[in-house]
Amino acid sequence: MEKIPLCLDDICEAAERIKPYVVRTPLLRSKPMDKFLGCKVYLKPEMLQITGAFKMRGAMNKILSLSQEERDRGIICSSSGNHGQACALAGKMTGTHVVVVLPEDAPHVKIDKAKALGADVILGPRLYKDRWKMVREIQEKNGYTMAHGYEDYTVMAGQGTIGLEILEDLPYIDTIFVPVGGGGLIAGVATAVKEINPKIRIIGVQAKASDGYVQSRKAGHRVEVECFPSLADGLGCRTPGENPYPICEKYVDDFVSVEEDDIKEAVKLVAGEAKLVAEPSSCVGIAAILGKEIEVKPDENVAFILTSGNWDIDMIGKILNNEHVDGML
Amino acid sequence: MEKIPLCLDDICEAAERIKPYVVRTPLLRSKPMDKFLGCKVYLKPEMLQITGAFKMRGAMNKILSLSQEERDRGIICSSSGNHGQACALAGKMTGTHVVVVLPEDAPHVKIDKAKALGADVILGPRLYKDRWKMVREIQEKNGYTMAHGYEDYTVMAGQGTIGLEILEDLPYIDTIFVPVGGGGLIAGVATAVKEINPKIRIIGVQAKASDGYVQSRKAGHRVEVECFPSLADGLGCRTPGENPYPICEKYVDDFVSVEEDDIKEAVKLVAGEAKLVAEPSSCVGIAAILGKEIEVKPDENVAFILTSGNWDIDMIGKILNNEHVDGML
Repeated sequence: MEKIPLCLDDICEAAERIKPYVVRTPLLRSKPMDKFLGCKVYLKPEMLQITGAFKMRGAMNKILSLSQEERDRGIICSSSGNHGQACALAGKMTGTHVVVVLPEDAPHVKIDKAKALGADVILGPRLYKDRWKMVREIQEKNGYTMAHGYEDYTVMAGQGTIGLEILEDLPYIDTIFVPVGGGGLIAGVATAVKEINPKIRIIGVQAKASDGYVQSRKAGHRVEVECFPSLADGLGCRTPGENPYPICEKYVDDFVSVEEDDIKEAVKLVAGEAKLVAEPSSCVGIAAILGKEIEVKPDENVAFILTSGNWDIDMIGKILNNEHVDGML
Repeated sequence: MEKIPLCLDDICEAAERIKPYVVRTPLLRSKPMDKFLGCKVYLKPEMLQITGAFKMRGAMNKILSLSQEERDRGIICSSSGNHGQACALAGKMTGTHVVVVLPEDAPHVKIDKAKALGADVILGPRLYKDRWKMVREIQEKNGYTMAHGYEDYTVMAGQGTIGLEILEDLPYIDTIFVPVGGGGLIAGVATAVKEINPKIRIIGVQAKASDGYVQSRKAGHRVEVECFPSLADGLGCRTPGENPYPICEKYVDDFVSVEEDDIKEAVKLVAGEAKLVAEPSSCVGIAAILGKEIEVKPDENVAFILTSGNWDIDMIGKILNNEHVDGML
C-alpha cells in the first residue's frame, strides 16, 4: 500500500495556519437531545463557521499553503455549493484570484454569491464529467492551482482541524459522527482523531440516496452508485473520492446510510432542542441514530459534526412545520 | 433617591457563583448580518444556554445565594415560561424544593415540563393579580423564599452576568440591545455594563403591543399599559417592574418599541444568516433596526442579546416559510 500523504502533523499545522481566519466553533453539550438519541450528545456547530459551513477551513488552508507565485496566478475550483463560496471568500481575505466554475443552470443566487465575494465565475456544462474536463483545461491554460473539494490533501488537512478541536474540548469523547459526500471531511477528521487516539470511534454517514462509501465498504473497493434526489443534497457523490477512500478504509470504523424521513426528523430535533439551523446534509449522523442504523450507549459521549446551515430558509421552515419538501439531486 | 441595592460587585459575585452550572455562551460575530443592519453585528446566543434561555442565570444565582435552611424550606415562583423552567432545573441541580404556580389554563406541555424537572406544580387563577395573591399566601404559609422573575435583585444580578461576558469578549463594544419585558434582564445588564464603562450605549426594546417602559420613560414615571397579542409573547408585561424601573432610569440610554412585521423579519434574518433558532421575543433588538426605530452607524460594534429559543418549532417554521402566525397574549 502506498504511503498516504496526510498525517496528524499536517492537520496541526493547518490549525495554526488557519487560526486567524476561521471561527473556533465551540463543542456544545446538548443535554435535551440525550433522551431522543440515547447517548450524551455533543454538537460541533459548523453553521456558525464563516460562510456558514466547515468548508472555509479546507479552502483557507489550501490558499495559505501556496507560494506567493501560485497565489498570484490564482486558484480554480468547481463547486456551486459551500466549497465554492469558501474558496471565493478565502481568496478575498488573502488577495488571491479565485475562479469558480459552475454548471450553466446553476441558480442565480449562487452565481451572484460567488461574484459578490470577488470570484470570477465561469459557466460550464451541466454534466459533471464534461465540466471537470473544462475545469482542467482552464486550469492548465492559465496556470491556476486546483482546489478540489475532497481530493486535495491540503483541503482535507484543513477540514481535519474539526477533529482536533473536538478532542481539545472533550478528550474523552467516545464516538464522532461525520456526514460523508466525497469524503474530504471524514478523511481529515479521522486522521486527526485516530492518530491521537485510535480508541475513538469514527462513523461515516450518508443518505441512502447516495451511499457510495457504504457500498464500497461492502464491496471492498471503490464502486460507483446511482444518486437519487435527497434532502441531503450536499452529500451527493457517485463515487468515493480516490484520495480520501484509502484513508477512510484505514481509519473509519463504520459507514451507515439513512432514510429521508429520519433526516427530516433530525433537522427538526436540531432546531427544536439545540436551537440551531442545520441543513439536512448536516443532520445525517443524528438521523442514523433516530433510524436505528447504528447503536449507541446511554453513557457514551457522542459528537455530531453539523457541517453547515446553508439551505433555503423557507425550505427549512417547511420541514419544521411538517410540510412536504422534495429532495434534490 | 433611595440607594439601589444592586451594583457591579453583586454581578461579579453572581458570575463566580453560577459559573459551574451555566453555559458560558460565546459572543458570535455575525458578519453576514452587517449589510442588513448597517453596523458590525455581534450576537449573544442565550438560546444555547441551559433550558434554552438566559433565565437560568438569575434562577441559579437566587438559589445559590440562599442559606441551607432557606434551601431546605424551598422556593416559589409564578411563571409558566422560561423563568419557571429555570427555577425548576436550578432546584433539581442543587437539591432545592421548588414550587411553580401556573395559571389553571396553562398548556399541559408547560405543566409537564416543570413536573419533569422535579418541581411541585400548583394551579391557580388565570388572572395575574389573583394568582399573585395566591402565590403570596402559599409562600407565607410554607416559609418558601420568593424567586420573582424580575423584581428580585439577586435574580437581576444573575441576568447581569450576560453584560460582563459581552465586555470580556469585546471590551470595545459600542452598543447593546436588550429585549425588555418586566425589566430584570436589562436592569442587570445595564448595571454591569455602565458601572464598568458608562460610554457603552444600552438600548431597551419592547414590542409596540406591550410597551410599558417606552410609555413610562415618556411620562417620567411608571405607567400601566394595555397589552395586545404579540409574537414577542415573552415580553408581555403591563407595568415596568418596581425594582428594575429606577435602575433603568439611571442606566438605560433609550427605550424603543417595534412592529410585529419587523419582529417576523428579524426571526427570519437570525435563522437565515446566523443559523440560530430564536424566539420572536429575542429578536426585538434586530427588529428595531430593521424598522428604523433607532439609528446605528456602519462602524458601530453592536451586540444583540438573543434571550431564548423556546417557542413552538412548527410556529418558527411558519415564520421562516412566510406563513401567517398570530401573536399571543
